[in-house]
Amino acid sequence: MCDLLRINTDRGVMIGDGKSRFSIGGKPIYHFVGTSTFSEYTVMHVGCVAKINPEAPLDKVCVLSCGICTGLGASINVAKPPKGSTVAIFGLGAVGLAAAEGARIAGASRIIGVDLNASRFEEARKFGCTEFVNPKDHTKPVQQVLADMTNGGVDRSVECTGNVNAMIQAFECVHDGWGVAVLVGVPHKDAEFKTHPMNFLNERTLKGTFFGNFKPRTDLPNVVEMYMKKELEVEKFITHSVPFSEINKAFDLMAKGEGIRCIIRMDN
Amino acid sequence: MCDLLRINTDRGVMIGDGKSRFSIGGKPIYHFVGTSTFSEYTVMHVGCVAKINPEAPLDKVCVLSCGICTGLGASINVAKPPKGSTVAIFGLGAVGLAAAEGARIAGASRIIGVDLNASRFEEARKFGCTEFVNPKDHTKPVQQVLADMTNGGVDRSVECTGNVNAMIQAFECVHDGWGVAVLVGVPHKDAEFKTHPMNFLNERTLKGTFFGNFKPRTDLPNVVEMYMKKELEVEKFITHSVPFSEINKAFDLMAKGEGIRCIIRMDN
Repeated sequence: MCDLLRINTDRGVMIGDGKSRFSIGGKPIYHFVGTSTFSEYTVMHVGCVAKINPEAPLDKVCVLSCGICTGLGASINVAKPPKGSTVAIFGLGAVGLAAAEGARIAGASRIIGVDLNASRFEEARKFGCTEFVNPKDHTKPVQQVLADMTNGGVDRSVECTGNVNAMIQAFECVHDGWGVAVLVGVPHKDAEFKTHPMNFLNERTLKGTFFGNFKPRTDLPNVVEMYMKKELEVEKFITHSVPFSEINKAFDLMAKGEGIRCIIRMDN
Repeated sequence: MCDLLRINTDRGVMIGDGKSRFSIGGKPIYHFVGTSTFSEYTVMHVGCVAKINPEAPLDKVCVLSCGICTGLGASINVAKPPKGSTVAIFGLGAVGLAAAEGARIAGASRIIGVDLNASRFEEARKFGCTEFVNPKDHTKPVQQVLADMTNGGVDRSVECTGNVNAMIQAFECVHDGWGVAVLVGVPHKDAEFKTHPMNFLNERTLKGTFFGNFKPRTDLPNVVEMYMKKELEVEKFITHSVPFSEINKAFDLMAKGEGIRCIIRMDN
């Protein structure tokens, strides 16, 4: 992890002098996660810039940002499902869909999506999900449902909700002996991960990831190349495209939920 | 994990017919962890027998049993400290000393023993410990003490106490980005492992192990070979040797604690 540049949401200023480079009417506007890309021009630390293939269409590859890369990398770089293995994905928002896509690219043969919102299941098929579990449809704990479906547990699980109970379920649903669970979702600050430690002694592994373990400057250009080589289809991650002048419409769509993944166009 | 032969302490009988092979005065004596070795003759499932080098002295290599193998394997097979890395060992009983020995064999250069009993520190040096931390000597949490000693966290930690608070400390003391914590100690049945899930998102790994991830039939003969090649000195694991007729003396020594590791001789 980069101690210097790792972005915390409180920073909002340049590292060099602790000041902002933006203002409106003399009032400072603070930087957002090191990039501040909702503007025509921006100022950022050299370490926050990655050079990508100049042929790449920016209105498509801009979706290869925090959420998508985190989900994708959680599967490809961290969970690393062996070919033919079974993966459970908890949460089918943008991050979870990217995790499913990553599991598909890695060669998993069964990808089980878990979500409380049944309307997300159909779309998740496009991202490689082969089966679905809605915990609401079961009286048994979802760990048990998954164990029953998989002869004792999934090989890998990726948790993309940020809900601490889903994190615990994602850990407890992997198979003894070799199972690996990867935590991706950002938890509530007061959340506590609780499990019986015997679950670890049965030779399971629990890992977390930040940005899918991608090193942004080194690895982002390669993710863009995956798109250029058609190994990764980014178009299916985009459900809406909204001009900057209507940015609040995009936030309204997001607040309604239901799996909206929107591009904000600056060319308006 | 072997579903068929994995021993639970409740079983106490042979798998084939659910009966015991021992009795005294017509009353059944139950089997103990699949081997029942406190007798001159025993009956065990073929899967519980490993063939070792016939040259190996049985009164020495008998210590290569559950505790020592678990600690040794936790370091060698699971934590896998890179050469030159720093490892913290929580608990300096027989299992922890074996974990320290494993870390030394793997090539760790700093091995920090953590124990509440200061009398164990001197002996632990023989097993590769280079530094010691007694949590009682500090007002700060031991995670912080270790982070301060190691520029942010140890590379690997191995927890060998079974105390759930030590488990949490062992996880929280590893370095962000690459740290791996291994849980070895068997927890109390009501114990709950609790940590803030953000600790996982910083790219740490938490693993558990059963019997040090050694596959007994395949791997135990190789552990005996390590002894035969003098890569592993088992003699230093033995502090007392007691004839069978005085077996209760051995239990008394054990109950007193202070790091007694005893051989029961059947040749009396």
